[in-house]
Amino acid sequence: MRVHGQPYRTIFVADDGVRVAVIDQTRLPFEFELRHLQTAADAARAIRDMIVRGAPLIGVTAAYGVALAMRENSSDVGLDSALEQLEETRPTAVNLRWALDRVRAAVAALPPGERADAAWREADAIVVEDVAINHALGQHGLALLRQLARKRAGPLRVMTHCNAGALATCGWGTATAPIFLAHLEGLPLQVWVSETRPRLQGANLTAWEMAERGIPYTLHADVASAALMSLGEVDLVIVGADRVARNGDVCNKIGTYGKALAARDNDVPFYVAVPSPTIDWAAAAGAAIPIESRDADEVLQIVGRDEYGQTQKVAIAPHGARAANPAFDVTPARLVTGIITERGIASATVEGLLSMYPERAGTTA
Amino acid sequence: MRVHGQPYRTIFVADDGVRVAVIDQTRLPFEFELRHLQTAADAARAIRDMIVRGAPLIGVTAAYGVALAMRENSSDVGLDSALEQLEETRPTAVNLRWALDRVRAAVAALPPGERADAAWREADAIVVEDVAINHALGQHGLALLRQLARKRAGPLRVMTHCNAGALATCGWGTATAPIFLAHLEGLPLQVWVSETRPRLQGANLTAWEMAERGIPYTLHADVASAALMSLGEVDLVIVGADRVARNGDVCNKIGTYGKALAARDNDVPFYVAVPSPTIDWAAAAGAAIPIESRDADEVLQIVGRDEYGQTQKVAIAPHGARAANPAFDVTPARLVTGIITERGIASATVEGLLSMYPERAGTTA
Repeated sequence: MRVHGQPYRTIFVADDGVRVAVIDQTRLPFEFELRHLQTAADAARAIRDMIVRGAPLIGVTAAYGVALAMRENSSDVGLDSALEQLEETRPTAVNLRWALDRVRAAVAALPPGERADAAWREADAIVVEDVAINHALGQHGLALLRQLARKRAGPLRVMTHCNAGALATCGWGTATAPIFLAHLEGLPLQVWVSETRPRLQGANLTAWEMAERGIPYTLHADVASAALMSLGEVDLVIVGADRVARNGDVCNKIGTYGKALAARDNDVPFYVAVPSPTIDWAAAAGAAIPIESRDADEVLQIVGRDEYGQTQKVAIAPHGARAANPAFDVTPARLVTGIITERGIASATVEGLLSMYPERAGTTA
Repeated sequence: MRVHGQPYRTIFVADDGVRVAVIDQTRLPFEFELRHLQTAADAARAIRDMIVRGAPLIGVTAAYGVALAMRENSSDVGLDSALEQLEETRPTAVNLRWALDRVRAAVAALPPGERADAAWREADAIVVEDVAINHALGQHGLALLRQLARKRAGPLRVMTHCNAGALATCGWGTATAPIFLAHLEGLPLQVWVSETRPRLQGANLTAWEMAERGIPYTLHADVASAALMSLGEVDLVIVGADRVARNGDVCNKIGTYGKALAARDNDVPFYVAVPSPTIDWAAAAGAAIPIESRDADEVLQIVGRDEYGQTQKVAIAPHGARAANPAFDVTPARLVTGIITERGIASATVEGLLSMYPERAGTTA
């Protein structure tokens, strides 16, 4: 990731070698601040309060959370308790469970005295792999962007949703990896950024990432997505995912399904960029994925900056209003043009996904 | 309309008999305040700044604007200038042009000395008709709600968009007229209110109208509409319109088209409540309708109330962000289950609309 032109990681071991540093994503785009996690409880809180968010980054943060826990109490009880505490932070992104399973497998058979180091090494390895996976995924997406760009005279107009950017991962992002690589090789781009109510990750985070890299972008209210497509203003849509079922159904930030419907109605290609840890081979279809319901206040109140640069939370509804706040939705596989993985672009079907990951053929839902 | 239990009009001649009073809709739901219009320029400003909004109310306000102008300068030049000034306030709602044409027809042939009184009478007549039309439309919609309610054990779950309520008209509203009538006769309802970014008319106005009448409602981010439908939480959608083309294409608040796509994908009936002045018989299809593009700041900043009850405008995007802000979109007629008019429910086709308004058969696009 680039911050003021400097390369940066969203999560890294702090200079003291003891704590884990993360970018506080609740303060962007207005302030760039680090937070330091010292315990598993800190990591759990950072995930729950969305100081870190994005399926891959949630997984990595949880992995470091286990490592932090092992320094406090590396007994079996300490391990189980840390895993449980971290797993229950957020229910939808499968990367969380995947990362915890992986760290558990790496440390459970070891004597307690060796667990902390092993957990750190495993978390570090996940970080390195995440960056590599996203870069590989980005290369496959880049080939697609090049191909679509050849059909157009002007800049290629890519729409995304929420933030599936570098901030959602350890580097490159998922949906943004093809965009960043295309920009680096000089392909002219115009990115449509949906603000992504209720938490405004598009306006707060994706817009910030585009600005930091100097990629032209235009923000719009989520409601404008369909109109922009019908007006012929969008060449393709690329979004990320929190979990993809075995059949290609895509669970992602609320609003993704509506965007996919609009893309289909206007013959706009709709791609989902998915590193393999986001594929839940045990989920037969989207209906099996638990959907997080978040606090009504996220709908009833909006956080921004006033003219003096002060953070303000403002109410937008009558006193006493009720609100529903489902955080994710399921886009049926039939609406997905393709799933961009680190091994290539798959059709959104069991066969398509298994053709990329034949070793998963034995996993049953 | 009901305000704190008392009947209220959104627009009326003030006690002084000279000025026109309107509810300042930019201050709801937090403050209920009247504004007084003394000149045609005041009326134009009230429309442009969305102190009044909603296709029917825009039309009525413009009609009173001509009446105010005729008291200042009732010459032909005065008339033409007022009509021009008012017509250019907002481009999409056809009721504006319709109301101005009607007042012009009522006064143009009269000697200047009689024009002011005639314009007032015509504006008053439009108000009375608007209330009657919406009530009639509401009765047809009510029959539909009764019929759908018979299929369900629990409350009928109606989703709407933006504010097509009493505030958008002189009384009853359009999309809300069936809802209010159903509530009055004791039909159990649950209204899904989409917040309607960027200007939040759902959260600010529709939620307020539901609360004032004691109708159960739940607010949600616009992005949640499709998910709520796919989860089986919505029995029907009713929206208003700013202009309906002769073929049944519906131009309405941005986001309506996406909602119609979601309704179709989930077999949820999608109705549009339209008083006849909103039908533009001269527009062959939606593509002929001019779409207003509004200021980027409406996307980049959000207005609400802080914890001390003070109005705050907060920025939600990085400094220097660009934003697109189309205010309306076109829902193709093929996605519309029916158009609820004051004469009955028509199919969204030329034939369907003409079957309700056979006298319009001669109007050519």
